[in-house]
Amino acid sequence: MEAFPDTLDYSRDNCSVGLALEVLGERWTLLVLREAFYGVRRFSDFERAIACAKNLLSDRLTKLVAHGVLRRDAYREEGKRERFEYRLTDKGLELFPILIALMQWGDRWLAGPNGPPVEIMHRECGARVHAELRCAADHGGLSARDTTPLPTLAARRVK
Amino acid sequence: MEAFPDTLDYSRDNCSVGLALEVLGERWTLLVLREAFYGVRRFSDFERAIACAKNLLSDRLTKLVAHGVLRRDAYREEGKRERFEYRLTDKGLELFPILIALMQWGDRWLAGPNGPPVEIMHRECGARVHAELRCAADHGGLSARDTTPLPTLAARRVK
Repeated sequence: MEAFPDTLDYSRDNCSVGLALEVLGERWTLLVLREAFYGVRRFSDFERAIACAKNLLSDRLTKLVAHGVLRRDAYREEGKRERFEYRLTDKGLELFPILIALMQWGDRWLAGPNGPPVEIMHRECGARVHAELRCAADHGGLSARDTTPLPTLAARRVK
Repeated sequence: MEAFPDTLDYSRDNCSVGLALEVLGERWTLLVLREAFYGVRRFSDFERAIACAKNLLSDRLTKLVAHGVLRRDAYREEGKRERFEYRLTDKGLELFPILIALMQWGDRWLAGPNGPPVEIMHRECGARVHAELRCAADHGGLSARDTTPLPTLAARRVK
């Protein structure tokens, strides 16, 4: 990706990467979401899967609900008090490419000698799934160097 | 994405998402990388772009160099002491789909009324670039619900 010739003249205040990281950038948040994509719904199961402190987990779940990424549904087991399940909303489900992109970079650069512990498969055909950069004219397999950023009318100059 | 029926029986210790977040998951790290993709190389320019404290920025750059995501090249301007530039390595360049996936989620769910401030274009044809989930059998536009995780031989049972 080529630099804006004048990249530093533009404000980062309304950058979508920055805005996304305000929702997702805290420690544990993306791990909570990974578990939600694995189908985990209950507090005690999140806790067991990611081994994070109860108060932190509770904070992260609450924030994800507040941001509309998870929704909280009540349930009650026989003879117990009401509890809650956490399910991905449509806004949450659309985070999946971020997790797949993280996973494939980790698979490629950080996995141990036996390779990664899980692969993501296309359910219909059984082939392995990956995140790929493509353009609207259907050119695929793009890398950073094939791209260039273009400021829009919403770009704000800092000077 | 369907849950493993027994997702909680598997250890997350060698999960590639977790490993990737050990490198990328600290506050500011992905913003530093966003700037590197915009072509920013010098400490003072990173500082200006993301307005983060000098000591934090220095820590993040040092860690990214240690992880082999950035490399540090010396340069010297006329009459000044030696300084360093930070450039993306191949390992770093491959982080681009993560940033694009974050950006497009932010574009879609968090952008202001005027839309996002920047679009990423395919340099060769000028069409807009996006991150897409595809499978090895070339089915495109997959969502989380079209996929299912498959443990590999590297998966470790916790019990």
